[in-house]
Amino acid sequence: MPADRDAAQAVLDNPAVSVSDTAAGVVLAPTGEASGTGLVFIPGAKVDPYAYLATFAGTVEQTGLTVVITKPTLNLAFFDLRPLDTFTAAAPDVDRWLVGGHSLGGVRACMFAQDANDEPEVSGLVLLGSYCASALETPELPVLSISGSEDGLSTPAKIEDTAGLLPAGTTFVQIEGASHASFGAYGAQPGDGVPTISPAEAEAEITAALSDFLAPGTVIVD
Amino acid sequence: MPADRDAAQAVLDNPAVSVSDTAAGVVLAPTGEASGTGLVFIPGAKVDPYAYLATFAGTVEQTGLTVVITKPTLNLAFFDLRPLDTFTAAAPDVDRWLVGGHSLGGVRACMFAQDANDEPEVSGLVLLGSYCASALETPELPVLSISGSEDGLSTPAKIEDTAGLLPAGTTFVQIEGASHASFGAYGAQPGDGVPTISPAEAEAEITAALSDFLAPGTVIVD
Repeated sequence: MPADRDAAQAVLDNPAVSVSDTAAGVVLAPTGEASGTGLVFIPGAKVDPYAYLATFAGTVEQTGLTVVITKPTLNLAFFDLRPLDTFTAAAPDVDRWLVGGHSLGGVRACMFAQDANDEPEVSGLVLLGSYCASALETPELPVLSISGSEDGLSTPAKIEDTAGLLPAGTTFVQIEGASHASFGAYGAQPGDGVPTISPAEAEAEITAALSDFLAPGTVIVD
Repeated sequence: MPADRDAAQAVLDNPAVSVSDTAAGVVLAPTGEASGTGLVFIPGAKVDPYAYLATFAGTVEQTGLTVVITKPTLNLAFFDLRPLDTFTAAAPDVDRWLVGGHSLGGVRACMFAQDANDEPEVSGLVLLGSYCASALETPELPVLSISGSEDGLSTPAKIEDTAGLLPAGTTFVQIEGASHASFGAYGAQPGDGVPTISPAEAEAEITAALSDFLAPGTVIVD
């Protein structure tokens, strides 16, 4: 699903963030001070990486986070098994990595979070309208699960049913009025619910939840 | 992707097999003697279950296999976490179950194969143009991986790269001339290669590989 052009352009025009396009992913970084924390973020199936610029721009600006939004391989494999450092290499100055994803991308992110052999080590997991497909055996891993009350794919019931697959300390944030497509700027999606908040409102809620999660004391323990 | 109507109709008209539609899946069973072996088969993402009737009709007829081709839930969840007995309940007379899938459906089938808590127990795994997303820790499980030389999604390189995730005794069959879409009757698919064999030829090869796999001594040890 293609990215909404205006939403992406607004981020490209934002002087507080820089956007660079690499083979492995789109890198969204602060033009001000970087926090040293990065997020490898995996889009939902067939969603354009640029659809997530608006999702993360506020957090990048406010917290200094760097985000690598992964690009699919040329021949869209149905399930991407490239190792984590394929993507982290796009932002070599980051020294602490989280993984995350939207929709099916979150299922893949859970696998990165689970795999103790990952290089670099994973310091946290961020799910947007998503869930893990099997139990995470990483009881200490900080996890943030942001869901939408109107999500017709990752429904509130689905989020609740799969909550037990995540560590006991997981932070769950349900955004009132957000749909599955509220987590990216790519238009409506079959099977989804109807959002009752604007994209800007959804982005503000996502930014608030992510910024809290990234505040010192949660993911960042130093 | 919708099923090819003529291919499905030919199976519906075949007196050697019966097709019944249940809430959980489409059940393809022999009208002659059933072997007692069943396969829960998970379609590729957004592929109509009826696209796989022609894929399995020959094996059902020749070996007495029963196949439950799973249907997605009403709101197409991006990743289906319903337990295995959701589907096996559609064919209660089967006493030995295999799991399998095409494309992303195979990734889900691997998870069923991995999960020791499944009810019923899984006796084998069948992958069509697919692979597991993490290593199967079931060294004794019989696994059949059928791939296509012209598959542009689960490419021969991808099958080779992920071979080590499967048990050492896995049977690999590459069908010369088959594409990703040769494993179902649903037309062409973006990113796929161009098949150089007919659907009937692909089905005959799939039937031969599956029938060998299901012969006494492999999956069926009694």
